[in-house]
Amino acid sequence: MNETNLQVRLRRRPEGEPGPEDFEIAEAPPPVPGPGEVLVRARFLSLDPYMRGRMSAAKSYAKPVEIGEVMEGETAGEVLASNDPRFAPGDLVAGGRGWQRLCAVEGARLRRVDTALAPLSAWLGVLGMPGLTAWVGLEDIGQPKPGETVVVSAASGAVGQVVGQLAKARGCRVVGIAGGPAKCAFVTGELGFDACLDHRQPLEAQLDAACPEGVDVYWENVGGPVQAAVFPRLRDFGRMVMCGMIAQYNIAPGADAAGAPPGPNLGPVVRKRLRIQGFIVSDTGWARYPAFLEEMRPLIAAGRMRWREDVVEGLRNAPRAFIGLLRGENFGKLLVRVD
Amino acid sequence: MNETNLQVRLRRRPEGEPGPEDFEIAEAPPPVPGPGEVLVRARFLSLDPYMRGRMSAAKSYAKPVEIGEVMEGETAGEVLASNDPRFAPGDLVAGGRGWQRLCAVEGARLRRVDTALAPLSAWLGVLGMPGLTAWVGLEDIGQPKPGETVVVSAASGAVGQVVGQLAKARGCRVVGIAGGPAKCAFVTGELGFDACLDHRQPLEAQLDAACPEGVDVYWENVGGPVQAAVFPRLRDFGRMVMCGMIAQYNIAPGADAAGAPPGPNLGPVVRKRLRIQGFIVSDTGWARYPAFLEEMRPLIAAGRMRWREDVVEGLRNAPRAFIGLLRGENFGKLLVRVD
Repeated sequence: MNETNLQVRLRRRPEGEPGPEDFEIAEAPPPVPGPGEVLVRARFLSLDPYMRGRMSAAKSYAKPVEIGEVMEGETAGEVLASNDPRFAPGDLVAGGRGWQRLCAVEGARLRRVDTALAPLSAWLGVLGMPGLTAWVGLEDIGQPKPGETVVVSAASGAVGQVVGQLAKARGCRVVGIAGGPAKCAFVTGELGFDACLDHRQPLEAQLDAACPEGVDVYWENVGGPVQAAVFPRLRDFGRMVMCGMIAQYNIAPGADAAGAPPGPNLGPVVRKRLRIQGFIVSDTGWARYPAFLEEMRPLIAAGRMRWREDVVEGLRNAPRAFIGLLRGENFGKLLVRVD
Repeated sequence: MNETNLQVRLRRRPEGEPGPEDFEIAEAPPPVPGPGEVLVRARFLSLDPYMRGRMSAAKSYAKPVEIGEVMEGETAGEVLASNDPRFAPGDLVAGGRGWQRLCAVEGARLRRVDTALAPLSAWLGVLGMPGLTAWVGLEDIGQPKPGETVVVSAASGAVGQVVGQLAKARGCRVVGIAGGPAKCAFVTGELGFDACLDHRQPLEAQLDAACPEGVDVYWENVGGPVQAAVFPRLRDFGRMVMCGMIAQYNIAPGADAAGAPPGPNLGPVVRKRLRIQGFIVSDTGWARYPAFLEEMRPLIAAGRMRWREDVVEGLRNAPRAFIGLLRGENFGKLLVRVD
């Protein structure tokens, strides 16, 4: 236990786009695990869009990070010490907490990592919260049927990758939306989506060409102009899985309507019998992880579930990487390799 | 069968608010019932907001009424002649078709009227399509739990009356929204809602006072400013039952966004895990009528399900009454007594 802890803390609440000055990086003494707790040395930190909400004081589904507190996030790494009989030093686990090198967490919150199935980092992405998010949203809201058309925004991102491949495995026609030709090529070439549309080009005509009969399920990660283009193309009984609206997280994170642009007129919701439903994966949470893993395991083993990671080196670079995530600059699941 | 038929036909498609000149009234020879059909002499015609959509050529869930055709609608009356062994002359039935005195319909589409439970006209309202609409929307989408707060727009209307009383019977706190003090007094005094807000006064403060902890279920009949006031007050896991948006039927009936005002920003749908879902009662239709009737029968018998009708005399006055319905001029379920 000679390592010091290194932490990224919230220095102040950003207005609009966060800047590096909103974070502070500091060393701290190593935490001492209490009864039932496990000391984890992070190797990877997951960076995810929801963290923007935690930086704001506005009321939301989870309480904000306080000024001076460690930024919230999940890590994967190895057990250094354990007061939980289920874990021993050297074990690889996911479920560590915070943008930091060392943490002490209850053993009950940790998930054991099986590197025979996928490497450590994947347990924060395709086999972590983003993957579970994809699965829960499809199970509970999207419920895609074979032959239906599923459109996925932020298709090369952590959640979008899994949504599209799960929908393909369930027999759907899957159309991604991503930013730029490189991401689109990856989404069709590597992930096997039927098409991928570039939101930097006008979307309407692309959507009409790729979804001539309209859209049965729209997986919403972004909001803004992408939502405005897809919404009118939903078919009767279409479902809009509201997972996130990253395009406005810097405008009005957590706020209701203040400062946020208007949305679609809801008249078509009646006429087309649409279902627009939001969810937060932590509501049902890890209780559903075994069922998720049961579907994912054979897909991964068969090479039918692929993923791309965007790994940034060093905890000190986490703020910059996170700011880029909100701009869509990452390409694949964004992770920080914790030094 | 000495009676001639009297019909209200669509003369031309209105742009915006319909006028009397969009309809034509004409006599016609009495229809001859075919095999399995029943000849019905209407005593009451139901006028309902959905009919505005049928007057437009725009694609919708049902095909439009063609120019020169009889306006679509449902009637209740008596059997004059029957080629269906289940019906005999003199029987009272609901399920006649069209804004007309006489119609020939398949017996399978008729519902037998039990005047011991409620008078003939009620089988077009509280025990007809509007009542069934209320029940289906609550069963499938609203799913109000005891103690929850349910807000009902157009609360004194055909559907709203039933929604609120069903929710009361299920143990909810029920707040209506209606136009003007007379309707509000009826909604609380006669129907027993806990409160009723007047949308002709600023709604925000009224909503905050009547729903201090927010809204669990919002029954949407109107759209427009009422929707804008209620939507931000939905609580976590709130449901918005999209039954209609009458405020814009004259703006963009059936159209997607063209000409229609924008709606709410959907960011809160994610954060609050809201469910916004539309439905059309005819999708599951009369197959669910027995279950509906089973819940309604004891409520009516116990005086816990009341209703108000707004009866207009004479088929020739149906166009004017319908135009008023779209303006909110009716007070209670709008019916025409067919002369």
